[in-house]
Amino acid sequence: MEQIIQDFKAYLGEMRMFRQAQAIMSFDDSTIAPKAGVAARARRNGFFAQKVFKMTISEEMKGFLDALESEVGNLDAPTAAMYRIAKKNYDKNTKIPVELVREFSELTAKAHVAWEQARENDDFEHFAPYLEQIVAKSKEMVGYRLKEGQHPYNILLDDFEEGMTMEIYDEFFAKLRETIVPVLKTVVNSGKQPEAGFMREFVPKADQEKISFFAAEKIGYDLERGYITESTHPFCNGSHKTDVRMTTRYDENDFISSFYSILHESGHAIYEQSVCDEISDTILSRGISMGFHESQSRFYENVIGRSRGFWEYIAEELKTYLPESFKDITPEQFYRATNQARPSLIRVEADELTYSLHIMVRYEIERMLFNDEISVRDLPEVWNKKYEEYLGITPPNNTLGVLQDIHWSMGAFGYFPTYALGTAYASQFVAQMKKDIDMDALIAKGDFAAITAWMTGKIHRHGSIYTPAELLKQICGEQLNADYYTAYLKGKFEGLYS
Amino acid sequence: MEQIIQDFKAYLGEMRMFRQAQAIMSFDDSTIAPKAGVAARARRNGFFAQKVFKMTISEEMKGFLDALESEVGNLDAPTAAMYRIAKKNYDKNTKIPVELVREFSELTAKAHVAWEQARENDDFEHFAPYLEQIVAKSKEMVGYRLKEGQHPYNILLDDFEEGMTMEIYDEFFAKLRETIVPVLKTVVNSGKQPEAGFMREFVPKADQEKISFFAAEKIGYDLERGYITESTHPFCNGSHKTDVRMTTRYDENDFISSFYSILHESGHAIYEQSVCDEISDTILSRGISMGFHESQSRFYENVIGRSRGFWEYIAEELKTYLPESFKDITPEQFYRATNQARPSLIRVEADELTYSLHIMVRYEIERMLFNDEISVRDLPEVWNKKYEEYLGITPPNNTLGVLQDIHWSMGAFGYFPTYALGTAYASQFVAQMKKDIDMDALIAKGDFAAITAWMTGKIHRHGSIYTPAELLKQICGEQLNADYYTAYLKGKFEGLYS
Repeated sequence: MEQIIQDFKAYLGEMRMFRQAQAIMSFDDSTIAPKAGVAARARRNGFFAQKVFKMTISEEMKGFLDALESEVGNLDAPTAAMYRIAKKNYDKNTKIPVELVREFSELTAKAHVAWEQARENDDFEHFAPYLEQIVAKSKEMVGYRLKEGQHPYNILLDDFEEGMTMEIYDEFFAKLRETIVPVLKTVVNSGKQPEAGFMREFVPKADQEKISFFAAEKIGYDLERGYITESTHPFCNGSHKTDVRMTTRYDENDFISSFYSILHESGHAIYEQSVCDEISDTILSRGISMGFHESQSRFYENVIGRSRGFWEYIAEELKTYLPESFKDITPEQFYRATNQARPSLIRVEADELTYSLHIMVRYEIERMLFNDEISVRDLPEVWNKKYEEYLGITPPNNTLGVLQDIHWSMGAFGYFPTYALGTAYASQFVAQMKKDIDMDALIAKGDFAAITAWMTGKIHRHGSIYTPAELLKQICGEQLNADYYTAYLKGKFEGLYS
Repeated sequence: MEQIIQDFKAYLGEMRMFRQAQAIMSFDDSTIAPKAGVAARARRNGFFAQKVFKMTISEEMKGFLDALESEVGNLDAPTAAMYRIAKKNYDKNTKIPVELVREFSELTAKAHVAWEQARENDDFEHFAPYLEQIVAKSKEMVGYRLKEGQHPYNILLDDFEEGMTMEIYDEFFAKLRETIVPVLKTVVNSGKQPEAGFMREFVPKADQEKISFFAAEKIGYDLERGYITESTHPFCNGSHKTDVRMTTRYDENDFISSFYSILHESGHAIYEQSVCDEISDTILSRGISMGFHESQSRFYENVIGRSRGFWEYIAEELKTYLPESFKDITPEQFYRATNQARPSLIRVEADELTYSLHIMVRYEIERMLFNDEISVRDLPEVWNKKYEEYLGITPPNNTLGVLQDIHWSMGAFGYFPTYALGTAYASQFVAQMKKDIDMDALIAKGDFAAITAWMTGKIHRHGSIYTPAELLKQICGEQLNADYYTAYLKGKFEGLYS
């Protein structure tokens, strides 16, 4: 058995080497790779994706899984986690016919182009036939994996956050709705918005880099084991804890945009940089789930970055790093300007209060699609109605409505809810953290070491050893509980707008 | 047989995918990868090197080679070339014990560190024990590959340039010596050097990029299928003809350094970008040899870039791209300043006239080492004597002498001569090109299209289909002939200095 375990780990170690290569190539693709090389890169990326896919379902893998099945109870936690992850992938990838996977991949490649065109031309009809096929094929693929009595959408939800179901999300979003919709009404009815014109002050890219990189390092990102550059869409990319990169984009008339995007990606990056050495060369070295990852990015971006205490601290640093800018702006002005809440149409530009409402719209629509309650052709109408109901505004066209996100063109159903989930996790962690340290006081002092050490000790160091539910229970002593998150939003935004 | 050939090509195609990944990761390593990730990268690079190595000697590979052996005469040229290359690698990699390869790799890793320290401290004794082992193990490895009556050094020469032998190189360098040493004496005795102080004029990096990128594109480098950035040592990196990158370094008080380094790397890059589409997805898509590659880089850097006609043309462009710089400098002044010849100690800083003398010193020393005529301990003395003999100067220490190059610490014996060889090839090509087009007139007009098209048609498009000897014969109707090169150097430098 010792030998089998060793061989199993070596096999997974080889998969991890391929994934490291994929990570480096993916970073290269998204930053500097020449446009004209796209076809050769697509072939190469397909080759490596196929290579890794085959390793998840090989005879060798089957041999390991069969041999280990009866031993699971005796394995140490990391090895058990490796088995669990490998087994889940094996089951998933062997149940769906390879031909169907190939068809789906071709379909989404075409659908992506159609979606781009449809969004450009506000032409939902152009995208609809592709989306219909994507939904149909998604259902077909899920069908192969369904267990007795299981709901198809639950399979997808579990793919992006292990253990999550419609039952849990339904209750979760109901609580958010109950709190956020009335708070948003309070905001709107208050009729007031902070003065924020100063945020458009010109700040040269080089200066934005200075203050953003400083802040990233200050909260715990290690630039010696990383690299920050530009790309069209900001992202974090980690191949190993000693090499975790991120990107941002700069608008010289919107300094705060790159600043918060770097704080956000730093959350992801700190997570990946802080896995413990024991598992840093294994497949467990990644963050456990989408939700946990998002909990970290939103914690650093919002809970820290948009707090009053943080602005009290960082406004002083701005004087050092940008001595010519924002000369007469107080911390309180910054705090209020970076926490404007208002109904809006575009998810990625939404404020902290309304963000989860955007997510909820998408969750409810996906739920109905996979419940056969609506069809793809109904989407624009359903979408607009839900925006009216929750946010009180109606998109003037589909480009600003149902066509705004890339996710469905990729066939990524079940992904959206993790964005809201992560934010709720973060509030649960904060409640626990405050039992141990005076988080608010530390933030106001610009002393983030104990805060990040707490997150590392409870979350980062464990990589993927535990399931999200196990880790949440370990940290908080309870399961998902939206109350912390709703209380946080209510307290913060009623404070700002009443 | 059709099926075997198809499978063989698919197998090599898979190797090529790994090599593409290696190229991208290597570029990343040398440009942006964080320093602290060096250990994880070393493991990953080792993994992929091992992966490709194993594919060259696998049972599957043996099966292909055995099956194709009797068919070689019937294969088309590209397939025959694939067989030839795969067979050569198979033979080489199976004959040397794997354990010895591993030992050698560990030894050179340590030797590299020792060499850096030795160079830093001018302490040859510190490096000597490592170099002794490297020479001993190189001889041992070569021993496994020796055929009846073959000289060990010929194996190494052939590794870097297929078909080359001591017999050919001896005659080659004898001719160079006969011409260059007297021409250099003429230069020294003339007692004159052009005025070149203006070359140290400050030119901001951004301006250097403008004129260098312009020149690179002008001579035929396609930036749409490439990318230029900075690194410690300039290099060219191609993963596919649609993605061929290069690097340089900028010294704002030495504009000409980055300018020529980009012209040089452009020669390599144009070669890699110009392979024909039929073989661009195969292992034949790389330039055929070190010598042929160097012929292209030196052709664009020296034959074009340091010609009088080029300066007549580019001096005009400088007025557009660097309107504030070099205001009163004539083309003739540029031409003379960029063609200063003088005895010097450091190979990488040597001028066009003396460069091959530096190479010759190394060739003769390697030849003696592998002939057991000298031992590693004799190197400093032998080195210094040869510099005195050919260049008329003696290194004041070993840092500026025998310790200057990295190559021997890597165990790369037989590599140096290809640098001189490539330069001689270039002169042979020029003689042929001039039969077809008026090269000098085109250069003076800044019209490089027909020149690069000639090189592409004769050389680039063929990738690795032909051996160096075959291709040289095809183009020039004869084998290596140093006369063109010596005539070129004699004509140019006697013209400049008499």
